[in-house]
This record gives sequence, structure tokens and C-alpha cells, in this order.
Amino acid sequence: MAVYTDVTADDLTRFLAGYDIGELRSYKGIAEGVENSNFLLHTSGGYFILTLYEKRVAAGDLPFFLGLMEHLAKRDINCPQPVRNRQGGTLGEIAGRPAAIVTFLDGLWIRRPTAAHCGAVGEALAKLHIAGADFPMRRPNALSIEGWRPLYEQANSRGDSVRPGLCDEIAAELDRLEREWPRDLPDGVIHADMFPDNVFFLGDDLSGLIDFYFACTDTLAYDVAICLNAWCFEPDHSYNVTKGRALLKGYGGARAMSGPERDALPVLARGAAMRFLLTRLVDWLAVPNGALVKPKDPLEYYRKLRFHQSVKNAGDYGMDS
Amino acid sequence: MAVYTDVTADDLTRFLAGYDIGELRSYKGIAEGVENSNFLLHTSGGYFILTLYEKRVAAGDLPFFLGLMEHLAKRDINCPQPVRNRQGGTLGEIAGRPAAIVTFLDGLWIRRPTAAHCGAVGEALAKLHIAGADFPMRRPNALSIEGWRPLYEQANSRGDSVRPGLCDEIAAELDRLEREWPRDLPDGVIHADMFPDNVFFLGDDLSGLIDFYFACTDTLAYDVAICLNAWCFEPDHSYNVTKGRALLKGYGGARAMSGPERDALPVLARGAAMRFLLTRLVDWLAVPNGALVKPKDPLEYYRKLRFHQSVKNAGDYGMDS
Repeated sequence: MAVYTDVTADDLTRFLAGYDIGELRSYKGIAEGVENSNFLLHTSGGYFILTLYEKRVAAGDLPFFLGLMEHLAKRDINCPQPVRNRQGGTLGEIAGRPAAIVTFLDGLWIRRPTAAHCGAVGEALAKLHIAGADFPMRRPNALSIEGWRPLYEQANSRGDSVRPGLCDEIAAELDRLEREWPRDLPDGVIHADMFPDNVFFLGDDLSGLIDFYFACTDTLAYDVAICLNAWCFEPDHSYNVTKGRALLKGYGGARAMSGPERDALPVLARGAAMRFLLTRLVDWLAVPNGALVKPKDPLEYYRKLRFHQSVKNAGDYGMDS
Repeated sequence: MAVYTDVTADDLTRFLAGYDIGELRSYKGIAEGVENSNFLLHTSGGYFILTLYEKRVAAGDLPFFLGLMEHLAKRDINCPQPVRNRQGGTLGEIAGRPAAIVTFLDGLWIRRPTAAHCGAVGEALAKLHIAGADFPMRRPNALSIEGWRPLYEQANSRGDSVRPGLCDEIAAELDRLEREWPRDLPDGVIHADMFPDNVFFLGDDLSGLIDFYFACTDTLAYDVAICLNAWCFEPDHSYNVTKGRALLKGYGGARAMSGPERDALPVLARGAAMRFLLTRLVDWLAVPNGALVKPKDPLEYYRKLRFHQSVKNAGDYGMDS
């Protein structure tokens, strides 16, 4: 939630001269996204979002992200649509940063999702998976199973300061995940970060999906497992099977999950919990003492992992047999 | 530049039910203002700014600020106009903070003002002073001469860490200001913080004034002196008399300054430099070591003060005799 790079009106006016969206009337730095600097632009052509990609986003990945948003928007997925400049490109540079303009999307994110919201999210996720099927580019998921052990090793020496015994528990679970991880399930484009703050609603209707900067090519059912983690736990970290059932039903209505995908749901859910536990743990340990910004609590995902370890089969998540 | 308070869509929807500006479509926390949390709202009625007043703004002063904006807007000063709720009030509460909605103003602020911009600012300032003449409320300026010695005493013990000898120089200047400060010049509503980032332009035209949260009742010519400090120095801290002449001419075209006001300009300019030197010094010394946010450089105003100490009369600022 920050604006890392200062953009002057002169810089921006010059940048916009390369686009066909009219004259700049105002722009505001907005507190959105963790990795990049975002500005809401008002031009005589309407409202847009300008994103400056900061160091944590690899410039080589930008054509994948922008190409994907354009691909999905063409297939009626309501997501920010990159605006092409006069040269036909979607990527430019401003203030020394790679930058892109995308359409502005109305909508509000839901802090306390109901089962109905979860159903809508499941359906939207399946439609995204289907719309992404013919997207020609590939991007490996650096935060899937191959990426977890290096994160663990980064955290290891100090991880127990967060919770005694945490590192041993992670190590044991990592061993198990590496043995059991399914390698031959259907793959394709996944969003990989479809948390409530990346899904917009207007009234009861899902109105849009944002933040495709973790999107990659990976196991489709793993994306479902991420959503179960992100949407179906209560604030006390208990799993709400009614929400899980709604999410899985919403998904299944648009894309049927195969038997092997259903069977793998528990191990995929453990993996998804591990992914957020590890990245949050590394972020937590990286913050200097006394810093004003508190990173997200890694133990939220430790508790979710503990739940998944107790799960017998996909039925425990609310999957109809 | 921050959003201090989190506002949920539920909170905001409930808050907006008290207004007649339609349904909420989206809102974004914006990086604007130093003291408060600001959100850009999109409703079916248009675009608005929601401000949550944080602790540094005294709640008792809010009726003055909001009343003033409404008063000025009625007199064709282009400034954010408070939106009245269904009870007829402009002040509400959200997320435990006093809050108000104002109209959204297009415009861009100018990093490197030209003499033409300075002329426009001078004219706008004079028009603001005239429009404010019949505003019935009063608010003493806590950051005028009576407020400076307490600030100095707050900084004193560590001020020399910023520049050796700084505290003695400030003390000597404070003594002189307290002896020479003019007490009987015309007073009224002043903006008191009309820096470039609070003045919007569209093309070459001044399109609006924002941030009235330092506005108060004080010497009108002191507001002119603040603008000379804020607009007429070059990045190397040299005074640009062409810009000063343009600003003073722009002001004088709308409101003629009296002889005593002109004569007082050098001491008022020293006072204005002292005010920003002291508040910046206190902010600078309050920031913990290693903080990510660097406050504004207090020595910029030390250097401006040194210039004003060398000035003989208003002619040195570009005032026509």
C-alpha cells in the first residue's frame, strides 16, 4: 500500500502524448497493490490506472501479465484491460520505470465474504481457467513447490522466534509435500493470488478481477486450493464448509474437476497454505524492529495448514461426491 | 502522503446512505495531504473526496475549515465544496474519525512554476482574501509569531545537530521578529499554506485551490509573504525577482496593498521563513533514526531566511514603487 515513485505532471503529460486517451486532467497516487506504484488518472478520455512496475516485479514477466489481461478481457473476463499506445504496445516507461495504463474498474472488495460471494468467486475462477486455456505464453510459478524450500531456508535460522518449533514443523510438512505433490494434473493459466482484495463486487454481483501480477502457468486445481484458503476460513481460523461447498460448486458449474483433481485437493490446500506461510514468514522476519508497517501474520497460514493436515478427503472441504 | 485509517466498503456504504450522492461504485485511498486520510470516491452521482480527520487536526477547527470552503465556493473561488448530508451538515463520522465529503477538483500541480504561474497565484490569493472578508468565523493562527518560540524551545536542545550554530541564529532572529512584528495591518481569512502542491492548473489556467487545513484569521500580507517563500525561489534557493514581481502584480491587480503592508513585506517574509524552518526542524528531529520517510529539509527555509535578512525593502521582492 504505497506509492514508491514520484511522477510529475510534466512526465505524465509527455507519457500520455503517446496514447490516444485525451488530455490529463488530474492524477492521484493510490494506496493499492504491494509491489508497484499506482496512480488513478483522469483524462478527457475517462478514468484509467497507471502502474509503475517497481523492482520486485521482473520486467521480463510484464509481457506475460499484460498479454494475459488483454487475452482475458477479450474473452469477457472483467479485468483491467491494457491500453495500447500509438505504437500498438502496452508497455512504456515513465520516471525510469516500466509502466502501463489499464482501464479503471469499478467495484468494491468484500471484507467478510458470504457463501454467495464464495460461489461467485469459484465460478469466476473456473471461467478464468477456461478463458486462459488458449493463452499462448507460459510463465513458471516461482512460488510453487520448487520455490518453497529456498524460502524455508531463508527463514529457517530465525523462524522459531515467531513460534517455538515452527521450523521443524515446516520442514516435516515440506518433506511430505515434496513426496506427495501431484505432477500430472491439468495445468494452464492460474491467477495464484485471488484473495478478497483482488475481487470486486457491485451489489451482490462479482464485477471484476484485478492484480494479475502473480499469474502464471500451474496446476489449475492448485488455484482452487488457494481460493479455499483465502475465502473459506473465518476470522478465528476455522474452516467454513458452507463457504467451501459454495466455492467448489460455483467452480464445478463452469468447469468440472476430474477425479484426480478432487483427490488432490487436500495436498494442494496444504501446499497453498505452505506458500503463504513461507512468504509471510520471510516478509515478517525481514522487517526491522520498530518499523511502522506490520507485515501480515504468518501464523494465520500455520493455523490453516494445521486444519488441512487433519483433512481426510475433498469431501471435508465441501466437495460433493 | 498516507492513508492512516482503513475504511471498509460496509462502513462507507453506511456512511453514504446519509448523503444524496448515489451508490458507491468504488473508492481508493489516495496519497494526498500529510495530516489526514483521503479517499477518492466514485458514486453514481460522480467523483468526490472523502477526508477522515486524524489526530493532528483539532476537531473543534473543522467547522471553520468546512464553513470556509463552502463560503469561498459560493463566492466563485474554485475550491473543494463540502457536500451536505441529509441532515444539512457537512461533518460526519466514519471509522471512529470525524469525516467530510467534498467535491472532486480536476487539476495538476506545477513542480517548476513560471512567472505566469506566480502571477496567477498572486491573483487567486487576493481574490481569496476578498472573498473571505465577510466570512463570520475566526480562527487564530497557532503557527504565527506567538507560536514560534514554543517550537524553537521544542527543537532547541538538538537543533544544532542539523547545522552548527543554527539555534543561536534562530534565537537572534526570533528576538528581532518579536520586536519588529507588525500588529496593525489588515487581517482576515488567510490560506497560510498556499504551496505549489495546493494550487491546481489546467493548461495555463489556475483551476483550483485545495487544502484549507491551515487556513486561519491573520495578517493578509503575511499570506503574500508565505507565497513569496513558496513560489519565488529557485531550486538553488536563490530568489527570482521576476517571479516575485509577477506574484505581487497579480495580487495587486485584485487587491491593492497599502503602504504599511508593502513596508512590512521584508519582516513578514522573514517570519514566514521562520515558521516553515521551525515546523520542519521539529518534524525533522522527531523522526526516529533509520525511518523510511524523510521529512522535508528544514535548511531550505534557513537559506530563504538568510536571503530575507539581506533585503532592504519591498522593492527587492519585485514590488513596484
